[in-house]
Amino acid sequence: MRRKQDEKSLIRKIERAFGYKHGKRLALALGDDAALWAEKRGAELILTCDWFLEGTHFLRDKHPADAVGWKCLARAVSDIAAMGAVPQCFLMSMALPESLTGEWLDGFLSGLRRASRALGCELAGGDTTRRDDVLISIAVIGETARGAALRRAGARNGDALFVSGTLGEAELGLRELRRAHGIASTRNDALRKHLYPRPRLELGQWLAKNRLATAMMDLSDGLSTDLPRLCAASGVGARIDADSLPVGSLTNMRDARQLALHGGDDYELLFSVAKKNVRRVPKEFRGLRLTQVGEITRERKILVTENRKTVPLESRGWDPFRGT
Amino acid sequence: MRRKQDEKSLIRKIERAFGYKHGKRLALALGDDAALWAEKRGAELILTCDWFLEGTHFLRDKHPADAVGWKCLARAVSDIAAMGAVPQCFLMSMALPESLTGEWLDGFLSGLRRASRALGCELAGGDTTRRDDVLISIAVIGETARGAALRRAGARNGDALFVSGTLGEAELGLRELRRAHGIASTRNDALRKHLYPRPRLELGQWLAKNRLATAMMDLSDGLSTDLPRLCAASGVGARIDADSLPVGSLTNMRDARQLALHGGDDYELLFSVAKKNVRRVPKEFRGLRLTQVGEITRERKILVTENRKTVPLESRGWDPFRGT
Repeated sequence: MRRKQDEKSLIRKIERAFGYKHGKRLALALGDDAALWAEKRGAELILTCDWFLEGTHFLRDKHPADAVGWKCLARAVSDIAAMGAVPQCFLMSMALPESLTGEWLDGFLSGLRRASRALGCELAGGDTTRRDDVLISIAVIGETARGAALRRAGARNGDALFVSGTLGEAELGLRELRRAHGIASTRNDALRKHLYPRPRLELGQWLAKNRLATAMMDLSDGLSTDLPRLCAASGVGARIDADSLPVGSLTNMRDARQLALHGGDDYELLFSVAKKNVRRVPKEFRGLRLTQVGEITRERKILVTENRKTVPLESRGWDPFRGT
Repeated sequence: MRRKQDEKSLIRKIERAFGYKHGKRLALALGDDAALWAEKRGAELILTCDWFLEGTHFLRDKHPADAVGWKCLARAVSDIAAMGAVPQCFLMSMALPESLTGEWLDGFLSGLRRASRALGCELAGGDTTRRDDVLISIAVIGETARGAALRRAGARNGDALFVSGTLGEAELGLRELRRAHGIASTRNDALRKHLYPRPRLELGQWLAKNRLATAMMDLSDGLSTDLPRLCAASGVGARIDADSLPVGSLTNMRDARQLALHGGDDYELLFSVAKKNVRRVPKEFRGLRLTQVGEITRERKILVTENRKTVPLESRGWDPFRGT
């Protein structure tokens, strides 16, 4: 837990250094999924960047090169989905050893290009250099109608809390990948979810357009780590019903709930909906399951109800400053 | 020279993978200082990103933390200056060891904040993680009137070639920094130019606004490395007059010309001007010297005239894939 504080304090330090005195065109800077930058008329730009580092976010001897290419972009675009916006283009800073500029780079670029096309996000430019480790940083520019972006702040007492898709499979996939020898095969569902996450762009845009969600974010570090962030931004608490968690193919596993509560890399959307609008949320959106998993509370605590007992939900998701 | 080819081939590989089939809103993707992305009405966005990596771009035991903060942003903003555009905001991906989150980070943020204010470029967001080495990637968003951006392509046979400021001092500063023990002091002019480069934003914007330059770029890797890039983009050659190079405080040094031809990190602007407009270029622009250093030629060769002999100019500037 000490280390978890370190990342927060690092971000706070940066916030303090920049004093948050942002201009009229910069609406949301730090502390949300992405920043908003107002275009002069009508639209607002959404800006976000994400690391994808060997040893921290992927393992060169385990992750297929094309999954590294897919995931580094998909992960950054997921922050655009989390604002209900439309991705436009991206910049890529890339460092890699000369020994990987052949077959590995071909595989990487093939995955990156597939993601670029699937997500409608064009490569706009970048910077390359040589390094012993593979280092990737992706910056994505998205767009939305002014005022339409869904933020983390906005959840209110009594709102229902929803998640898209299933939770925990990506974490199981990572476990399997770690156990296996050599480059991962992708025949396994959980592993595929870990390797090729699909940002929920259509759902995010639909929720924003229909003004159905009061707050939204994507689940990248695990529900138990991300939910407190949404609650902190909104100044509320939440209670999760562990029985309701959509665990997908994990349903018969003993620790399915633990994986769903704490597992990272799902890239599903977490969003709150005002009580009066709950019936407008369909069970499925274009084949993607939407599940109510709890509700927003006035008291600023994050609780979980499991086997009829309600206890505080400990953050045990992924945090780089805590280590893995 | 083999390794120099490697970086080019890496970029070509990326270009090929993405097939350069860019949408209507993405005007210039790879191969210039920055990408252009059309806003819906009137303005055009300029997008660029740059690495700033420990061991590659700076040395933790030599570079003051606040110079690392200043330079990582100044360097990226220089690409916005090179398009004649106005910086707006930036995203920062940052990785650092826990041991540097105290005093070092304070110094870094102080330099970064000074640069942010001096260059009019706000922090919009970022991503942080833990790592043994300090890794920084900066993405900058700038803006310009549509069609006004100055590109590398556009230089024509007979155009005069200009540079701003002085060349070679930053390289000398780097040499001095390498020789010295411990963190560099900044009392020395050359060293200060290496540590705190000033992107030529006003000059770039003035040249763009007055449509004086036919092509432009910033000098980051050294004249002998960068000039061939401008010439290649324009489909021309160039001849440099070594006697005319503005070497500033190096004037009495034996290898002043070599430093000016090959030294990196100057962040001055290199631009071509049609013959008929040469007299409209002042000797000084707001205290910044502008010097004609050669001319554009039809024949696609890069030549240098020194002591009345004209010879091919070899690229000996900084290239990460060649090593230092």
